[in-house]
Order: sequence, then structure tokens, then C-alpha cells
Amino acid sequence: MSAVTGEDRRMSNPVSPVGAACPLPLDRYPAITLAHGGGGKLSRQLVEELFLGAYAGPELSKLHDGAVLQVEGGRLAFTTDSYVVTPPFFPGGDIGSLAVHGTVNDLAMCGAQPLGLSVGFILEEGFPMEDLWRIARSIRSAADASGVQVVTGDTKVVDRGKGDGVFVNTSAVGQIPDGVDVGAHRIRPGDRILVSGPVANHGIAILSLREGLEFETRLETDSAPLNGLVAELLARLGDGVRALRDPTRGGVASATNEMAAAAGVGMRLEESAIPVDDEVRGACEILGLDPLYVANEGKMLLWVDPAVAEDALAILRAHPLGTRAAEVGDVVSEHPGRVLQRSRIGGLRVVEMLSGEQLPRIC
Amino acid sequence: MSAVTGEDRRMSNPVSPVGAACPLPLDRYPAITLAHGGGGKLSRQLVEELFLGAYAGPELSKLHDGAVLQVEGGRLAFTTDSYVVTPPFFPGGDIGSLAVHGTVNDLAMCGAQPLGLSVGFILEEGFPMEDLWRIARSIRSAADASGVQVVTGDTKVVDRGKGDGVFVNTSAVGQIPDGVDVGAHRIRPGDRILVSGPVANHGIAILSLREGLEFETRLETDSAPLNGLVAELLARLGDGVRALRDPTRGGVASATNEMAAAAGVGMRLEESAIPVDDEVRGACEILGLDPLYVANEGKMLLWVDPAVAEDALAILRAHPLGTRAAEVGDVVSEHPGRVLQRSRIGGLRVVEMLSGEQLPRIC
Repeated sequence: MSAVTGEDRRMSNPVSPVGAACPLPLDRYPAITLAHGGGGKLSRQLVEELFLGAYAGPELSKLHDGAVLQVEGGRLAFTTDSYVVTPPFFPGGDIGSLAVHGTVNDLAMCGAQPLGLSVGFILEEGFPMEDLWRIARSIRSAADASGVQVVTGDTKVVDRGKGDGVFVNTSAVGQIPDGVDVGAHRIRPGDRILVSGPVANHGIAILSLREGLEFETRLETDSAPLNGLVAELLARLGDGVRALRDPTRGGVASATNEMAAAAGVGMRLEESAIPVDDEVRGACEILGLDPLYVANEGKMLLWVDPAVAEDALAILRAHPLGTRAAEVGDVVSEHPGRVLQRSRIGGLRVVEMLSGEQLPRIC
Repeated sequence: MSAVTGEDRRMSNPVSPVGAACPLPLDRYPAITLAHGGGGKLSRQLVEELFLGAYAGPELSKLHDGAVLQVEGGRLAFTTDSYVVTPPFFPGGDIGSLAVHGTVNDLAMCGAQPLGLSVGFILEEGFPMEDLWRIARSIRSAADASGVQVVTGDTKVVDRGKGDGVFVNTSAVGQIPDGVDVGAHRIRPGDRILVSGPVANHGIAILSLREGLEFETRLETDSAPLNGLVAELLARLGDGVRALRDPTRGGVASATNEMAAAAGVGMRLEESAIPVDDEVRGACEILGLDPLYVANEGKMLLWVDPAVAEDALAILRAHPLGTRAAEVGDVVSEHPGRVLQRSRIGGLRVVEMLSGEQLPRIC
């Protein structure tokens, strides 16, 4: 559902203020029922009161089959992700904010700024209405922080025992500014590899919660929208930024391997240069994980021209999402398609892609 | 995952010929495991061999975080749908073709032609690999028939018992040709309401299968892509086509109610004019359902200027997806926001929106 052209009569759906209670009466509708996905009155009420109450905008409020976006000619980026993280609420975020940030970041890694976001829910019968409201409000906050609106959506309900509370799909369309060209095809030997901050926080926050690990400070997800930081880097460094990648599932290890394969070059990482928070490192040791393989949701890897590496670090460090950015490696013509890491004690090892089922359902 | 700009080195992923066997060795990978969603080697193999084997195109094959679409300036339509139909295979289609058709049709109802499609899977651990291959091949066929390519995708795996085999999300971006303006805002009293063919086939095909009903001929879904037919109608009738709507969940009853409310007009339907196949009608009687509330996946309602109603019917009937099109009602200034139906014996009744949970998980 969502929106169509022109001067559709707009429904007046004032967005609820921050902290507002769920607009659906919880005593009457304490939980999701199959009828909320049936396409009838209850479906309509869920959309009009709960979803529009959380994140109504002019396009979404028209409630047609598709949203209409006015665009300039050129290149659009288009991306999709489903989220099945368990549990759906965790320190520093929830499945809603994670979905928005993850999808905005996928666009940002193409050099694109978001034009519109879709949100599709697959809900299990019995899912608490109040939790859905909380997730919907979180989607709104994350979308606001990313400078994007939810313009279209969909809701399905599956019978009890056939889902797991809530799954979220977010897709998005973004515009790539003229002249911007980032991607593996632009990586060259000699390029420097930077990371925008400490790695492994998201995966470890989720796993610690599931395993019941306790630390002195609460381990939080790093989930955050990177599009603002990317816009600044591209505006100031232009072609000096060769490629961007967010190391989500599979972590830095998988992301660098995929980029090395796509670019047909070798990459070298310096273990001691890769920032990892002490408590994250401690949790990795307890859990038997290498932080290089753990997911991030608010970090990016950058491949930059060596001539702009210092400037890139300065821009990153001046931004709230890049204060602990570091140069972590470089690109070589040797061992194309492979990533090597020099350890703290000087040895070289091959960084393989993640294999096996180390970290299920962290996003 | 999917694609980025320019001259990325393209992987050579020849699409498997029609009827080809699953490119993953089924003796070694008989079913989906959690590692297929982990972002590592098995995830990569699933994407590169199975999904690219089924529906590789130049954008998808680049396997970056987002696809890049070259567009002209103007209006884009953007839509999303998740599919949770059970069972996932049914007469005349499956969850894959249904997802493609449904999403292409949502664009078509905005007057848009598709530019690119995303496919996101949420798979349950243990889902048969061969079934996934069959669905992926079906997505390819349906996309070909709709004139669109899968340009980006995503795969998540949930643990056994936390899903239901396979859920599919499809999102799509389409271009609305200059001058095309269809939507509830253009509906006027006096407009005629047409339907492109017999209603209720999809919902009844799924329910008959679930209930084990047997008929002389096999009841099949009507799932089909309507964008070609819409393009022809708009090219030949221009502004005479006021609005389009596919009566999916909630059927003709819910679709007409939503349009009457959005347009601020009344609508009248003629029961005897609404085409329903005999066997579908029979099944509706057995199941205690009114065909007006049952879902369609390859039909549309049209609101047209009375001056072009005859031409619209002729165009519909000359097209393979509209051979049994009919005029079924009209728009009035009375009872705004309400839909009335004149029954076969002449009485008038209010057509309410679907309420309750009549037909769970038919799409």
C-alpha cells in the first residue's frame, strides 16, 4: 500500500508526539491477530492509526499501492534488506532502527542519498501491539536522523508458531549525485584502507544479550546512519574516495575479501591498527570469536587514494560517527583476490571469508 | 547485496537454461542451513550459484550493496510487498511468481512500468534447496513475462520452528510516463467501473488446496502481470482512464471501499454483472465466502470516463488477460465513501469492507 500522484486528497494523520502512547487502544487490541493482515478493516486500522501515527508523511498518507517520488534524471541506487534479529530489542537500538540504518547505509555505500524508504512487516499472531508501536516509533526516529521518509509499506501476519514475533523488510531508493563514482572497480594498488571506528560492537552486543554476559559498561550496538558522513567525504574528497563498504554480516573479514575479489587486487590489514573496544575484545575472547568476523551496523570501510588518506581521516574524526577512525591497511597488486593480515607479533596470515554458522540472526 | 556503477568487473554467471537442475549439488546441500544466511562462504555460494543461476542480469551480477538504475527525470513509483502464502506451491503459480506479479501490478496501478525488482528471502533452516531453486526459477520466468529484471536481493535464514519454510519480499521501482495521472483523485461521479475478468480465482485456488476440495477442472490462481495491459490502455485512452486498483487481499469489496473513501464519492456495483467462474462460485458456496471479498492476483478494477467505457472494454477483451472484462458499476455523488450493490433480485445492500480473519495467508 501507499501513495499515488498529484493532488490526492490527503488524510490528516498528525504524527504522534515523541513518547506518545500507542494510538490503538491496547485493552481492546493487546496483540496482533491474523485479521490485522487480512486486507480488511483491522488491516486498515493498523495502518491508519498505528503506522501513520508513528511515521506518516505526505506520500505514505495517500495509502495507494505505490509511492510516487519526483526525481531528477541520472543514477538511482536501489536496495533491499530483511531483518530477523533476535531479540528485537537490544541495547542502543531495535529491529526498527537497525532496519532503517542498514538500508540507508547500503545506499550510502553506493554514494547515494536516500529519496524514500519502504517498510514491510511480517508479524506473528500474538505479537504485542505495544512492541509494534515501539518499533514503528523507532523507525520514525531513525528515518528522521537519516533524512528520509517512509513512503510505502506492507503488513503480513502469519499464524502463531510460523514466525518469530517480528521480521522487517526495508527497501530504499536513493539518488547518486552526478560525478560520484564509488565501487570496487575504482580500487587500485597503493590505495589505503580506512575504517570509520571500532569494529564488532553490533554483533557482540546482540550475542552478549543472548548469552547473558555482563560487563562493567553496557555493550551497545553501533547501529547508525552513515549517509551524512559519506556525503561530507564525497563533497570534500571527490574522486579520492574509491570505494565504500559497510562490514555487516561476516564482518571486516568478509567485506575485504569480497572487495578484493571484485577489484582483482590483494589487500593487507594491520591487526594492531584495527580499533576494537576493550570490552568488545573481552567478550570476543569469552565467546571464542575473532572481531574481524563480527557484524557492524554503523561502521564503514573506505578505500582511498593515498594522497587524500590523511584528509579522509581528519574528516572522519571530526564527525560524531568517525571519532575513532583509523588507517588499517592498504591495497597491493600481489595475491589478487586475497586478504592478508599482519598480526601484533609480526606474522602474516590469510584472512578467510567467514565459513560456518558463527553468528545467526544478528541482523 | 547487489550492484554498483560503471565498469565493475562483471562476473560471468550464465543463466541456467529452462528446466535446468539446481546448480548447487543437492546431495551435499539438500536444505538451507543457518550458515546460508551468515554472510560468509555459504551465503556467497547460495547467491552466486543458485540465485544468479536462476535470474542473473548485469546489475545483480555485480553483487554490491545496492543496484544502480539509470533513469530519466520525472515521477517514479516505488512499492513493496511481503508474501507469506501457504502452501508456497499451488495450481498456476507459486510464492515466487505471485511475488513478482503482485509487485509489478502495484506499480501498474500507479500507471508505472517497472525499472527494477528486488527479491528478499526469509528462509527457515531445513527448507529444501530444490524448492528454493524452483521458486528462484519461477521468479525469473515471471520477471521475464513482466519485462523486468531482478537487480538486487537479500537472504536471511531463521532457525527451525521460527519461520514457515519461505517468505519472500519483493520491492520495485518503476517509471510513470509523462502525462500519465491515474488515482482516486481523478474519479468523478458518472465514471464507469470495469473489471478485467472473473474474480475470486486466486483466493479460492489457495483455499481449495488447503481444504482439499476437488473440482472437475483444477482451480488455478489468476496470478499474472498487468503492466502490459495497463500500458496499452493508457496509450490508447489517455486521460480517459481515471484510476486503477488490483483487488488483492480483501477483494473487490475492500478495493472499492478504499477508493470510494479516498475519492469522496459513492460507488454502485451490479452483482449480476460481476464475472465469477462457475466452479469458483461453487467453491465459494461450499466455503461460505462471498466472491466479492476473495483475493485476486491478476485482475484490476478500472474507473473510466463514461465516454471511453466501450473502448476500454474492447481493449481489455482483445488482450489475453482481459478477455472476460465487464462493466460492473458506476460512480455517484450520493452516499460518499460508501459502496452499494444491487443484487440479482434487485435489492440494494451496503458492501462493507472485509472484517475479521476470513482468509489468512493467501498472499
